[in-house]
Amino acid sequence: MVDSVYISDVSQHVGKEIQIRGWLYNKRSSGKLWFLLVRDGTGLIQSVVFKGSVSEEMFQTCEDVTQESSVVVTGTVSEDKRSVGGYELQVSGFEILALAEEYPIAPKEHGTTFLMDHRHLWLRSSRQHAILRVRHEVIKACRDFFDENGFTLIDAPIFTPNACEGTTTLFETEYFGSRAYLTQSGQLYMEAGAMAFGKVYCFGPTFRAEKSKTRRHLTEFWMIEPEVAFLDLDGDMDLAEDFVSFIVKRVLKNRRAELEKLERNLEPLEKIGKPFPRISYDEAVEILKKNNIDFEYGSDFGGADETVISQAFDSPVMVHRYPAQIKAFYMKDDPGDSSKALCVDMLAPEGYGEIIGGGQREDDLAVLEGKIKAHDLPTEAFDWYLDLRRYGTVPHAGFGMGIERTVAWLCGLSHIRETIPFPRLMHRLNP
Amino acid sequence: MVDSVYISDVSQHVGKEIQIRGWLYNKRSSGKLWFLLVRDGTGLIQSVVFKGSVSEEMFQTCEDVTQESSVVVTGTVSEDKRSVGGYELQVSGFEILALAEEYPIAPKEHGTTFLMDHRHLWLRSSRQHAILRVRHEVIKACRDFFDENGFTLIDAPIFTPNACEGTTTLFETEYFGSRAYLTQSGQLYMEAGAMAFGKVYCFGPTFRAEKSKTRRHLTEFWMIEPEVAFLDLDGDMDLAEDFVSFIVKRVLKNRRAELEKLERNLEPLEKIGKPFPRISYDEAVEILKKNNIDFEYGSDFGGADETVISQAFDSPVMVHRYPAQIKAFYMKDDPGDSSKALCVDMLAPEGYGEIIGGGQREDDLAVLEGKIKAHDLPTEAFDWYLDLRRYGTVPHAGFGMGIERTVAWLCGLSHIRETIPFPRLMHRLNP
Repeated sequence: MVDSVYISDVSQHVGKEIQIRGWLYNKRSSGKLWFLLVRDGTGLIQSVVFKGSVSEEMFQTCEDVTQESSVVVTGTVSEDKRSVGGYELQVSGFEILALAEEYPIAPKEHGTTFLMDHRHLWLRSSRQHAILRVRHEVIKACRDFFDENGFTLIDAPIFTPNACEGTTTLFETEYFGSRAYLTQSGQLYMEAGAMAFGKVYCFGPTFRAEKSKTRRHLTEFWMIEPEVAFLDLDGDMDLAEDFVSFIVKRVLKNRRAELEKLERNLEPLEKIGKPFPRISYDEAVEILKKNNIDFEYGSDFGGADETVISQAFDSPVMVHRYPAQIKAFYMKDDPGDSSKALCVDMLAPEGYGEIIGGGQREDDLAVLEGKIKAHDLPTEAFDWYLDLRRYGTVPHAGFGMGIERTVAWLCGLSHIRETIPFPRLMHRLNP
Repeated sequence: MVDSVYISDVSQHVGKEIQIRGWLYNKRSSGKLWFLLVRDGTGLIQSVVFKGSVSEEMFQTCEDVTQESSVVVTGTVSEDKRSVGGYELQVSGFEILALAEEYPIAPKEHGTTFLMDHRHLWLRSSRQHAILRVRHEVIKACRDFFDENGFTLIDAPIFTPNACEGTTTLFETEYFGSRAYLTQSGQLYMEAGAMAFGKVYCFGPTFRAEKSKTRRHLTEFWMIEPEVAFLDLDGDMDLAEDFVSFIVKRVLKNRRAELEKLERNLEPLEKIGKPFPRISYDEAVEILKKNNIDFEYGSDFGGADETVISQAFDSPVMVHRYPAQIKAFYMKDDPGDSSKALCVDMLAPEGYGEIIGGGQREDDLAVLEGKIKAHDLPTEAFDWYLDLRRYGTVPHAGFGMGIERTVAWLCGLSHIRETIPFPRLMHRLNP
């Protein structure tokens, strides 16, 4: 009985006969030899079938086997630096479990729609493997960072009762005779969490029904949102900087092979170091002016503006103190200039735009009530939220980081759709 | 300048003067002394204010401070085994940041509706702290288990395009002119993932619009779902057993204080060990008979039935091979008895019922097509899923574990509503 081994573990079995169970990724022949490239989800291994070493029927099987057929390969592991993954299998046995029909994804170029329609199969490609392994690493790094720093995980609800800021970008559903809306952010709930646990975070899917078809938008995306009691804007920026540095280092350490597979230029990632530049909105506007960008002071930055601003720096740049009027009601005004909010956006380098948005929250009951009225929001919907200011209010701050945008940046992808296993876009709900 | 320290870290500051920033949890006086119990989210510390050591105004502040006011306490740390947490603060300075209005949650008994309406404040109680820290530990253990065992995280989509098995328990939403449904399980997507990555899992919220008001049901709950290629039912049970044992051990190791706070009887948890008993549906029915339970052979077990079955064992029990007709179309038939499905439910001990459901999937294209027809399901909706059988089908299996039911069991809670920060029930969408 020969041991079944994952390809990722073959280095521990050099010189031994093992069994690999997987799928045919590719093959080529050279007369007396078949080179079968086999994948099992953990890696690829070249399996060399020599005509003299196996039966004639078995050698014929190599001729018959089609791409993505499920196979069991028995053979002896040898080191071979020239081979994919550094190891090879000298085949003594080869069996087809299920012969695949003609595989729709050939090694030629396919259109995006075709690939997205076949996302369930496209996931088998080594490029998608690399991206989704980086995604996994980013998510693990996020959780490890907060877990190791004393944060408590407080999952925010997905169903929320109010469409306070209008329903235009909210998905709604019937909820036992009333209406519920899918969350766009767990922040308000995290504020309750921070008052209870000091340091909290949530991590889950969030939803935006934006009629937007840009390369940066998904209707369903994952966000991690920390919130900390007794934290001000400066502390919030320290936290965001530590957090993003941690993620970049972790990915460079554990997923270098994947980034190389994606032909990601590692130099810009390796240059990233603390402290990240911190500039005010006003300073960011100056950068746009110097670059002759037509921009109306007081408005929000668009994607193109963010690109120009971020290109002025090697590390992610933190832009703070936007005009209060374009920011949400819960932002605290800058005591030094009440026309500005104590908020911060972090823009990734190389034109990847905003990956983090956050800031210090208004902690004064009367001021917050005033803001809710000024924004024409229904006070009763925020009654529970105002309780957080009635019972032991403290300065607090937090932020949200979008997982997919971060993965797109780290992998150097031009479109966000490949950063999530089953992307949901305005015109994409399948498979 | 005195260092601000979290209560969880005071053991490193014995004999030093530090500052604690938090909230007043409770207080009592004894003439010349005030004992202020302060919480900061990481723990509780008794702060002793001696009339002679502080100014008269400051001593008066102790009289004035109300429950849940935010406070800054300065003092010297001393060890005191009799105190909560084992340390005490000899107070040299005390400041109220924000005086709280009369706190609605008094240390008396409140009704469930009242507490649920004030969930954003109820989270501050030490009982809720204990439960949610166990929840955090369970989630971390789940991820660690799969991450350490070579699984790749493949997040399943929340929006799904079809209501294949009827819309009665599905939440639906308008999706840019068409309809989308909120996921009930990521399984089908995980099968695609397993064919690509070998071993995968997803972890996220799932949704059931069940008109059910039992103590075991939430409309929004979190589920972790592994799926593995080249795995059969026995291997699936091995995996489930290893997984649950790992979680129980981890929680007992890291969250013992929280379980004790909840007055959880630890004995039944400590008894849990591998192997878990594995019994067939038929054997489970025998147990019901022996206990004189009125049960119709061929039907599914109800909550009360599960309680009786699980009470026959010390460890979680795995019940396999249910009648195929009461199970989903994708279950593989038992080759030894085609009236049975190769499925398994794991029932937690002490009457906590099903925490895991899973099994081996039908991997034969023709058989699966036949099952889809026999269940009157629309084949075109499953075309992508059938692709997994067209291109390199292999035996595979997996399961889903509900986080909240697991937490309820481990914490020994009678109702699932306290196991999630902001529970969503049929009649509960607030706060």
